[in-house]
Amino acid sequence: MSNNKKSMLAIGLMSGTSLDGIDGAIVEIKPDFSCNFIEGHSINYSAQMQAKIKKLFSYRISPKFLCEMNFLIGEYFAKCAMELINKTKLNPDLIGSHGITLYHNPLNKNFENFSLKSTLQIGEGAVIAERTGITTICDFRVQDIAAGGEGAPLVPFADKILFGNSSINRAILNLGGIANVTVLSTNCDIFAFDTGPANMLIDGAMRKLFNKNFDKNGKIAKLGKINNNLLQKLMQNKYLYISPPKSTGREIFGEKYLEKILSTTNDTPENIIATLTMFTAKSIKQAFTDFIYPKSTIKEIILGGGGAYNKTLKENLSKEFEPETKIKTHEDYGISNKYKEAIAFALLAYCTFHNIPNNIKTATGAVKEVILGKIIRKV
Amino acid sequence: MSNNKKSMLAIGLMSGTSLDGIDGAIVEIKPDFSCNFIEGHSINYSAQMQAKIKKLFSYRISPKFLCEMNFLIGEYFAKCAMELINKTKLNPDLIGSHGITLYHNPLNKNFENFSLKSTLQIGEGAVIAERTGITTICDFRVQDIAAGGEGAPLVPFADKILFGNSSINRAILNLGGIANVTVLSTNCDIFAFDTGPANMLIDGAMRKLFNKNFDKNGKIAKLGKINNNLLQKLMQNKYLYISPPKSTGREIFGEKYLEKILSTTNDTPENIIATLTMFTAKSIKQAFTDFIYPKSTIKEIILGGGGAYNKTLKENLSKEFEPETKIKTHEDYGISNKYKEAIAFALLAYCTFHNIPNNIKTATGAVKEVILGKIIRKV
Repeated sequence: MSNNKKSMLAIGLMSGTSLDGIDGAIVEIKPDFSCNFIEGHSINYSAQMQAKIKKLFSYRISPKFLCEMNFLIGEYFAKCAMELINKTKLNPDLIGSHGITLYHNPLNKNFENFSLKSTLQIGEGAVIAERTGITTICDFRVQDIAAGGEGAPLVPFADKILFGNSSINRAILNLGGIANVTVLSTNCDIFAFDTGPANMLIDGAMRKLFNKNFDKNGKIAKLGKINNNLLQKLMQNKYLYISPPKSTGREIFGEKYLEKILSTTNDTPENIIATLTMFTAKSIKQAFTDFIYPKSTIKEIILGGGGAYNKTLKENLSKEFEPETKIKTHEDYGISNKYKEAIAFALLAYCTFHNIPNNIKTATGAVKEVILGKIIRKV
Repeated sequence: MSNNKKSMLAIGLMSGTSLDGIDGAIVEIKPDFSCNFIEGHSINYSAQMQAKIKKLFSYRISPKFLCEMNFLIGEYFAKCAMELINKTKLNPDLIGSHGITLYHNPLNKNFENFSLKSTLQIGEGAVIAERTGITTICDFRVQDIAAGGEGAPLVPFADKILFGNSSINRAILNLGGIANVTVLSTNCDIFAFDTGPANMLIDGAMRKLFNKNFDKNGKIAKLGKINNNLLQKLMQNKYLYISPPKSTGREIFGEKYLEKILSTTNDTPENIIATLTMFTAKSIKQAFTDFIYPKSTIKEIILGGGGAYNKTLKENLSKEFEPETKIKTHEDYGISNKYKEAIAFALLAYCTFHNIPNNIKTATGAVKEVILGKIIRKV
């Protein structure tokens, strides 16, 4: 560990699996890691850009298109950072950018003597560094994969910093496209994994059935009734029963899976949304029952991410978990739900900048601690 | 500039447009940039790997395949570095890796308010850093593109360090897949550009017509006669007449172009190789006539790269240029022809590590000097 750390203003940039836009957070981080969230800012991709991004996730793409999109997405990330800088009139020292995950393939297969585990984030960091004039750290996942890990989840490192100084056994549950849980317990090492979908299926179905990007406050889900037959089928998804460490994304819970779901039911749109929302809650509960409670009781679950604003999802979780385990949100602790992941990448960047290893082996399964990310220097 | 530079052992890794394998060079670099080439090492891709790499340059590829290949190519680069380390029993401080260029698109087009100029190198640096335990710098081209440049050529920075301390007006001509020239003259700023093909067409035709990877020592070309009709057609290639700064690759001089050439002639295989070899020499001469001699006389051209070993190509160049301009090779100055580009990336990495901007604006056309590359730290 470096002993000459200094306080820094850092921006974290995140674009999650929902692919609607970019979240940026500016944070003051002190050498003791105490961290003050100053401001958040989000931009949406234009319709034309969103169409281009969607094309990236096609079965096959041209190298030229990929090459261009890496730079274009970098421009959008830079735009988010610049708007945040202009909004706050601050001069940040550092940017940590997650990029967009184009593909995540943590399964162990071999070619010749080499492993085929891999992950790929795009959104060129050099563009962000050049447009902002700020040292930028990007590509946080690859180093952990190279060290034998899953390259995910990375947010537990931030969870530990933000919520680890407590005698209460906690689980931090981020509800982005995918649901990620971090277990901070006095009974066991930190561990973390993706439980399955959070908003990905709900958002996808909202787009198809209601032409809306998401179910605001969970209102549509509230109107519908649970289709128990469909829910039962969903709960058979094999991913749910794989032991951690594990991570997932649209490879398993993306459009194809959603299309398959929608093709098997004639139920009303509201009932489908209600059922998908319940599936998110039940799949999370399943993960606790199978993989978390056997290791530790959990006093409270702290929700974050956009899904923390979905009241129906939150109610479903309360019904599943309370009173044994209390459901809270980041905002109960003064941290933005929406910008939690962006904040996490600001914290990760701060550590990388100071040569502090920042993967959590027990979360990613890596064989050693590594300094995540690639540094693009601006003097 | 950093004032606390130290001597370092650095490895440079290069895989050029010929895509046959990876060259590694280990170099001692002193704070005054004087540079001592210690050892070189090359590995070839296995046949299976080469087939995979070829597939990368298909019209369309899957994101999954690209994601895997970035890591697999990284493993090959790491292997080259490790074999070089084991061979020399040295402990290098730093690695600079160019990677493989998947696509290079320096043309200025716009989307929304953003430029579509872009470049993409793959061969995951994090894998190299992890396998070797050595701080690794990769992705040298993107930063220059972000700063408005062509992202190429980058080797002129090394040419300046290696050959710039002279009162003789020189041109450094690297004969890889593509021919790159750097002009070091007392009459003008350093400038550099890609003149067109060096070995790319010759190697491609050798594979198709002789089932060999290249024309060793130019023996086949020596046996053939020039097909003047074909040569004249080749010399009509529009790229040759574009004003610098300019850079190119297999997008213009790749397999498609070669197929087109081969389909228009019934000449003997030897004559075709002879003609392609002469085309390389004549296209270089054209570049000097149109873009270099108008700015400066050139006393000597120093050849490097694999093409410097092609005796017929060297003879052709001597006939075109001598006696006004002498043809020499790097080896006349104690520097390996073969490992020149690898050495260049060791030098670039040394500068990046020490916060020294290392693009040459007059070569790439960038609007400002930037620190190239992304740093992956191993403590």
